[in-house]
Amino acid sequence: MKLPRGNVLIGQSGGPTAVINQSLVGIIEGCLGQAPVENVWGAVHGIRGVLEDDLIDLGRESRETLEEVAWTPAAALRSVRKKPTREECERLVECFQRRNVRYFFYIGGNDSAETAFVLNEVAVARGYDLRLFHVPKTIDNDLRVTDHCPGYASAAKFVAQAFMGDNEDNRSLPGIKVDVVMGRHAGWLTAASALARLHPDDGPHLIYVPERTFDVPAFLRDVEAVYKRLGRCLVAVSEGIHGPGGELLVSGDEKDSHGNVQLSGSGALGDFLAAAIKRGLGEKLRVRADTFGYLQRSFAGVVSDVDAHEAREVGRAAARTALSGEHPHGSIYIDRDGSGPHYRVHYGVTHLANVAKHTRDLDEAYLDGNTDVSAAFIDYLRPLVGALPRSGRLKGFKVH
Amino acid sequence: MKLPRGNVLIGQSGGPTAVINQSLVGIIEGCLGQAPVENVWGAVHGIRGVLEDDLIDLGRESRETLEEVAWTPAAALRSVRKKPTREECERLVECFQRRNVRYFFYIGGNDSAETAFVLNEVAVARGYDLRLFHVPKTIDNDLRVTDHCPGYASAAKFVAQAFMGDNEDNRSLPGIKVDVVMGRHAGWLTAASALARLHPDDGPHLIYVPERTFDVPAFLRDVEAVYKRLGRCLVAVSEGIHGPGGELLVSGDEKDSHGNVQLSGSGALGDFLAAAIKRGLGEKLRVRADTFGYLQRSFAGVVSDVDAHEAREVGRAAARTALSGEHPHGSIYIDRDGSGPHYRVHYGVTHLANVAKHTRDLDEAYLDGNTDVSAAFIDYLRPLVGALPRSGRLKGFKVH
Repeated sequence: MKLPRGNVLIGQSGGPTAVINQSLVGIIEGCLGQAPVENVWGAVHGIRGVLEDDLIDLGRESRETLEEVAWTPAAALRSVRKKPTREECERLVECFQRRNVRYFFYIGGNDSAETAFVLNEVAVARGYDLRLFHVPKTIDNDLRVTDHCPGYASAAKFVAQAFMGDNEDNRSLPGIKVDVVMGRHAGWLTAASALARLHPDDGPHLIYVPERTFDVPAFLRDVEAVYKRLGRCLVAVSEGIHGPGGELLVSGDEKDSHGNVQLSGSGALGDFLAAAIKRGLGEKLRVRADTFGYLQRSFAGVVSDVDAHEAREVGRAAARTALSGEHPHGSIYIDRDGSGPHYRVHYGVTHLANVAKHTRDLDEAYLDGNTDVSAAFIDYLRPLVGALPRSGRLKGFKVH
Repeated sequence: MKLPRGNVLIGQSGGPTAVINQSLVGIIEGCLGQAPVENVWGAVHGIRGVLEDDLIDLGRESRETLEEVAWTPAAALRSVRKKPTREECERLVECFQRRNVRYFFYIGGNDSAETAFVLNEVAVARGYDLRLFHVPKTIDNDLRVTDHCPGYASAAKFVAQAFMGDNEDNRSLPGIKVDVVMGRHAGWLTAASALARLHPDDGPHLIYVPERTFDVPAFLRDVEAVYKRLGRCLVAVSEGIHGPGGELLVSGDEKDSHGNVQLSGSGALGDFLAAAIKRGLGEKLRVRADTFGYLQRSFAGVVSDVDAHEAREVGRAAARTALSGEHPHGSIYIDRDGSGPHYRVHYGVTHLANVAKHTRDLDEAYLDGNTDVSAAFIDYLRPLVGALPRSGRLKGFKVH
């Protein structure tokens, strides 16, 4: 398939991750100097930058700057939460035509894949040869097809380190502690809290994910049972937990253009659960709640090496795929070839429609009952996160 | 001064830090095998363990375990928030006498120094030769005499890395973001957010500490001015901000036995400020609030090397001081001898009364107006925190 000659444009979309800029740099590296490529540009604030013709020339950035940017969290091109209308999609393709953009890479989640899917339809209808590639990123790990999403493992590492410390904190000053973890529809990130356990009595002792219906009376019984047994209880709760009808426990009224309700950036769910525990189990109990919030997706300096490497490779794979001409469009995925210490992956490309719009829940095999994850999940996650900080506990020989 | 022969007892008290176990191990290292020392014991949950005779033999722990424990956040001996009554202090000294404890090291903040002070009075009144040493720790950095407190720099590093990432997040998806930082009486930890700034437009753009009176209308004007200038605003707020009469903006009714109101473990202040911004500046604005909570004091793996080293040395200095016999009691402090790249310290001992009970605010010279810190503060803090993660920004050459 003959490759059109023209410009490359890259955009970043949706919530940031710690490694989204690795993918950006991977695409740049894969495109610069290739025969069909005239310029490698970035769209500032994703498709908003395309519509406003706010573009920057990434080919002029130095090698040093790009390498520093790769290790910097959040979107170096700046991001956007915008679902374009059909009319805007027409305008976007017009912008591509005017600028002779022939290769568009959109780094984002399922919403971004959907945008790429619609843009492809519009370009095909117009007979404009535009190569569109979705490059996956999301801390939620909820994209279809791919084994896991770049960005997830670094956020999982943050959550694991947070729970490692909070477990020690909760042992130091016992009480009931609720930690609210990001994850609107899927419990992947909340489940990562289980990596913090090193000893049999370590928390999190209870893990609640959106894949299970949340019931306050059952929750109180669970907490009470752990508290009676250990004199303390550390709980991991996904921000997306909901009742049998899908109703959230605490709901703001702010929605983005994709119809997603605002869950993060508020301590309301944690405070609600802490109050419910006090009301149900005793006002005198020491109950605290923390909401990890945006730290999970953009904390500087907590990055999984595997995640950083793979995010770069996914970007390079997108460039390679686009410039091979084998696929006019698609979404890059990661496939796992070996598990445990034999962990290794390869990269593939799937149709945009397979990734667009829909999300992927935690596999049933990764859950154990209503309040825990399975050993299979730990096997799945551990190679992605890599080594955690060393930690020790006194043997505690009693003085008689 | 002749040294009594007997047992060493160590306790940990108050809120955990990332390096409180370094001090524990430093004391153990300094005491084991010394002539006047029979056994080195730990009190489980501080003075509660003494009253309940819940003691462990630290001399039987392996070198490997101790080294691992030193790098583990929170209190390995487990902690306590307990202000002993006079009657309990009498009982505590009786427990020391029964167990022939002649050296008591209490690792904690100003409340712990006060406990040690009262215990000393009781021991003196009873004519019991007890050597009492307070070993400082607190993420709040609010102890008197010492240049800075072990535990502070690691928490400051966490706060700086959190703001580095959150600044990028806020650039990616612009809006108004409020981050609530620990610090009941003093703004030291909130002020550390300023270390995150690398570029002139980096946040935090506004810093609110308890040393200044907080006024909601002035706050809204400040936020609006930054938002108009940059299209975004990142705010660091201490959990202890208060009105002119000292009244908190949002107040729970839970207090510990020292009379401290519960501030952490709740998102209420952040949510209150976010709501105030929306009400005052526009309901359509993208406003988010995160409360960093307990992660600041116990996150695993984010530790300042200087802090870890000094916390160990403070423990060793306490042991050395006690066993030199020069002082029957005291509190260990850190004194700074050189600044900037010439940063170095030595360790001294001061009277317990100089540290007990009272706290130390941010120096006036470390504040700049009502919403920022001074360059002198950055000079003070930077050597304590050490290197931060590398970070880069695209030059952003516009495409014309």
